[in-house]
Amino acid sequence: MSRVAYVNGRYVPHAKAAVHIDDRGYQFADGVYEVIALIKGKFLDEVGHLDRLERSLRELRIAAPMGRRALSHVLRETVRRNGIASGIVYVQITRGVARRDHPFPADTAPSIVVTARRIKGPSPKAVEEGIGVITQKDIRWERRDIKSISLLPNVLAKQEARENNAYEAWLIGEGGVVNEGSSTNAWIVTKDNILVTHPADHSVLNGITRLGVLAAAKKIGVRIEERSFSVEEAHAAKEAFLTSTTSHLLSVVTIDGKPVGNGHPGEVTIKLRQAYFAHFGLKDGSFL
Amino acid sequence: MSRVAYVNGRYVPHAKAAVHIDDRGYQFADGVYEVIALIKGKFLDEVGHLDRLERSLRELRIAAPMGRRALSHVLRETVRRNGIASGIVYVQITRGVARRDHPFPADTAPSIVVTARRIKGPSPKAVEEGIGVITQKDIRWERRDIKSISLLPNVLAKQEARENNAYEAWLIGEGGVVNEGSSTNAWIVTKDNILVTHPADHSVLNGITRLGVLAAAKKIGVRIEERSFSVEEAHAAKEAFLTSTTSHLLSVVTIDGKPVGNGHPGEVTIKLRQAYFAHFGLKDGSFL
Repeated sequence: MSRVAYVNGRYVPHAKAAVHIDDRGYQFADGVYEVIALIKGKFLDEVGHLDRLERSLRELRIAAPMGRRALSHVLRETVRRNGIASGIVYVQITRGVARRDHPFPADTAPSIVVTARRIKGPSPKAVEEGIGVITQKDIRWERRDIKSISLLPNVLAKQEARENNAYEAWLIGEGGVVNEGSSTNAWIVTKDNILVTHPADHSVLNGITRLGVLAAAKKIGVRIEERSFSVEEAHAAKEAFLTSTTSHLLSVVTIDGKPVGNGHPGEVTIKLRQAYFAHFGLKDGSFL
Repeated sequence: MSRVAYVNGRYVPHAKAAVHIDDRGYQFADGVYEVIALIKGKFLDEVGHLDRLERSLRELRIAAPMGRRALSHVLRETVRRNGIASGIVYVQITRGVARRDHPFPADTAPSIVVTARRIKGPSPKAVEEGIGVITQKDIRWERRDIKSISLLPNVLAKQEARENNAYEAWLIGEGGVVNEGSSTNAWIVTKDNILVTHPADHSVLNGITRLGVLAAAKKIGVRIEERSFSVEEAHAAKEAFLTSTTSHLLSVVTIDGKPVGNGHPGEVTIKLRQAYFAHFGLKDGSFL
C-alpha cells in the first residue's frame, strides 16, 4: 500500500505531496504542528492534541483551516487510507501561501498537511534498560509553549545528542535548570519519591504525554511538584525519565555519561509507565 | 511575462513551483536564505551575500547544492528569465527531503529554490522623512548570526511593528541593548558624530548592507564604534537609522513614538546613504 497524504483539501500520493515555495511554513517557519500516537487503532488523547493545536494557532493568530470535527475526520481518513493500526499521524498548519514579506498577509488561507505512518518507537532495549541524555544550553526562542515548526535549534540539539550516542539532549535554561529535551519533557523522581517536572510556562512545551503522566501519577497517588530542577538535582535524583508522544516514558539512566540513581530504570518510572497506558485502557504502548 | 522560479535543477512557472511536504525546510525550518538586491542590472555585493550563504550552510552543516559559479549563473538566469532590471533575487537552501526525524538525515541532497521579482522598496516619503520604530524584547534564538529560515519570532515582531504603525521593531536584548531590527540592523550617530552599531557576534545578523555602510563610513572618514548601545542612548542620539538589503539606509526619526534628535533625517545618515551607493558606483538605490 503506497502512502497517501492530505494536502489542502486533497488526498494525494505521498511521493507527489507538495506545497508552494511561497508557503510561509517554508520561508518563515510560520506554522504549527502536532504528532498524535495511534496504538491499535486508537488515538492517544486526540482531544489533548487538538486543544493544543488550536491554542498554538490562536497564539500565532493563524486561522484554523477547518473545524475540529472536520479535522478529526481527516486524521482518521488519512490513517485509514494508509492502512495503519499503530503509528503516528502528523498534522501541520501554516499561515499559507503569500508573496514573501514578514508581516501577516491579508486574506491568505492557511495551509494544512496531514500524514500518517507506522513508526518503530523506542526499542525494547531502550524501554527495559533506559537511555542516556546529554545536557546543553537552551538557545531556543522564548515561546516554547507554542508548538511551532521553528525547530532548527531542536534539530541541532538532537543531532548533537546522536553524535554523543545519547537519546536526547536536555536543554539547560537560566540558573542551570533543566527546561526540557529537544523533543521531550524532562522529569526526575526525588529520594522522597516526589515526581518533579518543569512547570508549563513559556520555557517548555506542555507535552500531551506530560499531562497524561501527571494524570496517571495522581491516579496512583504519586506526589507531584511542578517546579524547575537543576542538573545537579537530576544527577542526585533517585530516578529520571523523559516523555513524548513517540517515546511515551523512557527511563533516563545517565546524564552526560554519569549514572542517575543506581543506573537502572526506577520503580516509580516503571509504575508510571504502566499507569499511563492504563489511563488509555492499554497494557503497553508498542507501536509494532 | 509570467514569473519563473528555479527549484532543484529546473526552471518552472512560479505558480506551480513546489517543494515536497517532507522538505526539512517546511517541517523543521532547517535551512538558510539570502536576499540580494539588483539595481539597474547590477547585484549589490553578490560576493558578500554568497560568502554569508556559504557560512550559514557551514554553521548548520548543510551541503552546498552546487558550486559558487553555478549558483551565480542560476541567480543571473533566474533574473534574466523574469526580465528584471531592478528588484531582488531570493535564494533558499534547505537540508532536503527526508522522512521526518529531528537529527540530520543521512545521504539527503539539499533543496534549492531561487526566485526573482521587482520590489517597490522604501517609499520616497520614507527615504526623505525617515521612519519610526518600536522596541520590544528580543525573544529569538541565540544564533542570529546564521541567516536561517527559522523566522517566526521575526514575523511576530514585524507584525507588531505594523500594527503600531511603525516600519520596524528594534529587538532589545539583555541589559537593555538594541540588538537589531526584525529584518534590519540598527545604528545611531552620537552627538560626537560617532557611528555606532552592535558588533557582529551571535546576537545579530552581520548584514551585508551593514558591512557596506561600514566600508562607506571608513571611506568618508566617519568614526565607527562597533559596540552595543541602549535604548536610552538611542533616544539621546543625534541620529539613528536602519539598514537592510531592501531598505538600504533609512533614517529612524522616532523610537516608540519619541523623536530621535530633531525628529528629522540627520546629515551623517544622508551622507552615509550617498556614500553607500557610491561604493557600488550608483547614484541612488531606487528599485523602481
